[in-house]
Amino acid sequence: MLIKRLAIIGVGLIGGSLARALRSAGEVGEVIGCGRGKENLERAVELGVIDSYTHDAGEAVADADMVFLAVPLGAMRDTFAAMKNRLKHSAIITDGGSAKASVVEDCLAVFGEELPGFVPGHPIAGTENSGVEASYAELYQNRRVILTPTPKTSDTALELVTAMWKTCGSDVTKMSVKHHDEVLAATSHLPHMLAFALVDSLASMKENDEIFRYAAGGFRDFTRIASSSPVMWRDICIANREALGAIMKSYIDNMADLTDTISKGDGDRLLEIFERAKESRDRYIDGILDSSE
Amino acid sequence: MLIKRLAIIGVGLIGGSLARALRSAGEVGEVIGCGRGKENLERAVELGVIDSYTHDAGEAVADADMVFLAVPLGAMRDTFAAMKNRLKHSAIITDGGSAKASVVEDCLAVFGEELPGFVPGHPIAGTENSGVEASYAELYQNRRVILTPTPKTSDTALELVTAMWKTCGSDVTKMSVKHHDEVLAATSHLPHMLAFALVDSLASMKENDEIFRYAAGGFRDFTRIASSSPVMWRDICIANREALGAIMKSYIDNMADLTDTISKGDGDRLLEIFERAKESRDRYIDGILDSSE
Repeated sequence: MLIKRLAIIGVGLIGGSLARALRSAGEVGEVIGCGRGKENLERAVELGVIDSYTHDAGEAVADADMVFLAVPLGAMRDTFAAMKNRLKHSAIITDGGSAKASVVEDCLAVFGEELPGFVPGHPIAGTENSGVEASYAELYQNRRVILTPTPKTSDTALELVTAMWKTCGSDVTKMSVKHHDEVLAATSHLPHMLAFALVDSLASMKENDEIFRYAAGGFRDFTRIASSSPVMWRDICIANREALGAIMKSYIDNMADLTDTISKGDGDRLLEIFERAKESRDRYIDGILDSSE
Repeated sequence: MLIKRLAIIGVGLIGGSLARALRSAGEVGEVIGCGRGKENLERAVELGVIDSYTHDAGEAVADADMVFLAVPLGAMRDTFAAMKNRLKHSAIITDGGSAKASVVEDCLAVFGEELPGFVPGHPIAGTENSGVEASYAELYQNRRVILTPTPKTSDTALELVTAMWKTCGSDVTKMSVKHHDEVLAATSHLPHMLAFALVDSLASMKENDEIFRYAAGGFRDFTRIASSSPVMWRDICIANREALGAIMKSYIDNMADLTDTISKGDGDRLLEIFERAKESRDRYIDGILDSSE
C-alpha cells in the first residue's frame, strides 16, 4: 500500500477525487478529511471518501504520512500555519494549487525553510461542479499532473507523489515553479481573463440583453468560463500576478496592434496576422489531438 | 411556389444550403448557380443543388426572380457590378454577408441608388466546413436570420425574403443596418479577434510548442475559432471596421484595467469584476438557454 494515512485538507472535487482514486486502487489505508463545512464533510464520510474528519488542519495532519492541500490559493498560508509543529518528521506534503510560486513562498514564510517533504503540484483537471458530491475516482485518468519540486525537495518525496498520481491514472510531468506559472498563465489564466473582460465589455453596452441574445454558439461556450468561481480566480490572479501580468501586457499590445490594423483597413496585414494564427493553431493543436486522442 | 427562378451567386455551404432547403420544401423552380470553381459547380449539379451554372454573375441573374449573394464581403462590389443592367426590373436581391453597412454601400456605389428590391440579410449559421459538399437542407432550421431593410427596401421584397427564410425553418428578425453591425461586432467579430490575438500571443512565446501542449480543453475549443478562414475574416474586419474598432477599443480598456488591478494585487476589486461578469453571463446566457433550448 502506497499511503498508510492520508490527510486531505479541503474535501471537494479535487481532494475528494484523489481520495476516491487511491481507495479504488487499494493504495491508501486511512483517510482523514479537513474542511470548514460540516455538512460536506459528513457527506464525505457517508460516501466513503474519508474515514473521519476534523475542522483543524493541525489535528488532521498529526499522524499523516501524506498530506494533500486542496484549499484555495488564498488559504494556503493559513493552512501551512495550522499544520506547523504538528507534522510528522517523515510526512510528505503536496498540493493542487493552480499557481506554484505563491504556494512555495507561503510554505517558506511559515516554516522559515523549504521543506524536503514538500512537492508542489498541479493536477490539470476539474469540472464545472464542486464539492465532495461531484468527486469521482476517474477524474485524474489521462490528465496531466505537473510537479514542481524545489531544489530542497527530496527524491523520496518526489517519487512517492509521482507514484500517487500515477496510481490515479495521470500523466505526471516535472517542471520548474517559474516555468509552470508561465505556462499556466498563457494557457489557462490568460484565456479566463479574456472571457471575464469580454463579458464585462458586453454587459456594459447599451441594450446588452439583446447583445447576449444574439450571441452565437461558440461565444456561449467561450463565456461559460466567465461563470467560474470569482473567489478562485481572484486567488489565482493574485498568486500568479507576475507571470499573468506579463502575458496580459503582451496580449494587450497584440490586440492594440490588431485594432490599429483594422482601423487603417490594412487588408494585407490582416490576412498575414490571421494566416499566422491559423497556421500556429492548426499545427500545434491538431498535432496534439492527432497524437494523443 | 415561392420562387420561380433563383440565382445563387457563390455555391458553397451558405448558398448551397439555401437552395437545398427551398428545394426540399418545394418552394423553388429552377436554380442557377454562379461561382469561380468549375469542379465545385459541377459537383453542385450532380448533387442536385443547382440545375445549371455559369461563371458570369450577369448571366446568372438575367432571368432570376430572386438573387442570393453568398460571396465574401470583399467580392460584393464586383458582383453587384457584374449584375448591373442584367437584373429583371422585378428581381429581388438578398445576401448572406456578416456585416451589412458595407454591402449597402457597395450596392449604392454600383447602382447609384438604393434598390427597392434589395433586402440586406444575414443568416447566423455555419459549420466548420465549406463548399457545396458541406451544404445541407437543415442548416438554417431554428437559426436566426437578421434582415436589415434600408429605407428604400420595398415591402414586397421584404415580405418575400422573410417568407423564403421562414420556409427554411429560420427565426427571422429585423433590425437597422447600423444596429446589426454593432451587435455582430460584439457577439461574433470581437470574440474572433480575441482568439486570433491569443493564438498569436502564445505562438510568439519561447518554447511555444510546449505552451500549446499544455493547453486545456476549454482553451482548445476557444482557439478553434482562430482556424476560421483568414480571407473571410480579413473581409469582415475591413467591412465592419467602424463598429468593430469601437468595441475593440472598449475591450482593450477593460483588459488594461484588469491587468492594472492584477498588478496591484487588489483582491477586492478583482472579486467585484469577476462577480459582475459571472452574474451577467449567468443571467443572460442561462436565461436564453432556458427559454429557447
